[in-house]
Amino acid sequence: MIAHVGVVTDSGPIVLPMAYGRTDDWLYLHGSAANAALRSASGRDVCVAVTIVDGLVVGRSPFHNSMNYRGVVIRGTARSVDSRDEHLEALRLVSNHVVATWDTGRPPTELEIRKTMVIAVPLIEMSAKIRTGDPIDEAEDLDGPYWAGHVPIRSVWEAAVPAGDLPDGIDVPPAIESLDGRAV
Amino acid sequence: MIAHVGVVTDSGPIVLPMAYGRTDDWLYLHGSAANAALRSASGRDVCVAVTIVDGLVVGRSPFHNSMNYRGVVIRGTARSVDSRDEHLEALRLVSNHVVATWDTGRPPTELEIRKTMVIAVPLIEMSAKIRTGDPIDEAEDLDGPYWAGHVPIRSVWEAAVPAGDLPDGIDVPPAIESLDGRAV
Repeated sequence: MIAHVGVVTDSGPIVLPMAYGRTDDWLYLHGSAANAALRSASGRDVCVAVTIVDGLVVGRSPFHNSMNYRGVVIRGTARSVDSRDEHLEALRLVSNHVVATWDTGRPPTELEIRKTMVIAVPLIEMSAKIRTGDPIDEAEDLDGPYWAGHVPIRSVWEAAVPAGDLPDGIDVPPAIESLDGRAV
Repeated sequence: MIAHVGVVTDSGPIVLPMAYGRTDDWLYLHGSAANAALRSASGRDVCVAVTIVDGLVVGRSPFHNSMNYRGVVIRGTARSVDSRDEHLEALRLVSNHVVATWDTGRPPTELEIRKTMVIAVPLIEMSAKIRTGDPIDEAEDLDGPYWAGHVPIRSVWEAAVPAGDLPDGIDVPPAIESLDGRAV
């Protein structure tokens, strides 16, 4: 759902959790045009990590403890997205990344669009790692008296909760309602 | 469960997901002594983000979409942990951070300890953010025909899965067994 974005500012590295969207070629990040970290990322090298933790891995030795996870790390030089068409498309992609809300929400205003900065990171230098299943213990430990295995995590969407100030008679959009009970 | 750690290497910023442990004063990160990112962090400024995503927030306007989350961002100069006592204690804290496994696992060997590097980040410069509940929409949108609300995520531990090569008759340690069904 979120990316952790690392940028180098004048006062050192910063890592921030951010929403994102993407095409095959670009990862898009958006934020307030007043966001100092986002502004300092533009034109500079950034690193973006997206990590899903699937469970805990317990080895016979704690040194073989680990996590089961799926993760991607992307490195590249971010560019500010200045063309009107790409800017709007990037905002749509970020908005629709987790669940499509762009077309069922109130259409954006010019002010909202102008106040939202978008940067793009090229999807060229990337590494993906997936770890699943059992720990990998030392051969000499396998007959020992210590437990080993893994503990999965299950993350599911619960039922949508209407805002307290929502007028009666407005239905949950199907894309949002259909999340209920699905794996995140 | 995990931290995203940002360090500045000679080839730019890197963000990596890592296990961690902590005291009131120090956050500990460990890894192979051959880990280039960890080595380059020692003595330099780092940024550590820990983020728990609790759900999706859907505004009337997609520009008011957000996440419900709990997050901490820590900045500081990392130091290599060289004292034997602190090194061992840090390894115990990292190992026990999610669930206590240090005392029920096979005791560490000298080689395991030597091959594992620990760095400490001072818990001095930190910010914590918590977002819960409804979107915050524009006043003029409140009477509109658009749905607004939030969709919670529920993450729970499932039952522990024994390793395929675990001999019969070794019980799951109580600390691990008791995770089953608990919120992550």
